[in-house]
Amino acid sequence: MALLDYFLRSKEKQVTTASKAKERLQIIVAHERNQRNKQPDYLPQLTEDLLAVLRKYIPVTENSLSVNVDKKDGDLNVLELNIELQEENSGK
Amino acid sequence: MALLDYFLRSKEKQVTTASKAKERLQIIVAHERNQRNKQPDYLPQLTEDLLAVLRKYIPVTENSLSVNVDKKDGDLNVLELNIELQEENSGK
Repeated sequence: MALLDYFLRSKEKQVTTASKAKERLQIIVAHERNQRNKQPDYLPQLTEDLLAVLRKYIPVTENSLSVNVDKKDGDLNVLELNIELQEENSGK
Repeated sequence: MALLDYFLRSKEKQVTTASKAKERLQIIVAHERNQRNKQPDYLPQLTEDLLAVLRKYIPVTENSLSVNVDKKDGDLNVLELNIELQEENSGK
């Protein structure tokens, strides 16, 4: 669970310093394949499917979404999705 | 991207020490809500939907799946899904 602890600590710092988002959803997907496993990389298609699911819960627009993909040594692919909803300006 | 870098470094250590899994998928979902945002917590339902998507790509069984949920200070919920496929013993 070390990763999860790190994640929570980094989140706590972010909440106090970052702009007050109305809502923020962060998803990390790490796909580790044994090098003899010759199946195709399904992360790109999985990314589309995950976004389709997320849209049921939170509006996902070009402005609110950031996608990062990191490929490491051929057998570890990491996808990071960040969706951030800003506060509506209540001064209307 | 600090979190992503940490994630990659912890993965590298894991691959060399952990048992050689045929394939491993790790998903972390962090849901941060502004405390004035009184919408219900949708993480439990989102978890089911995410698992339904993952089943299209990787067999998810009781033995291969571990689920951890961490709730922090009321506005940060973190879900961790680990799916690990063991090597078939080729000694048959």
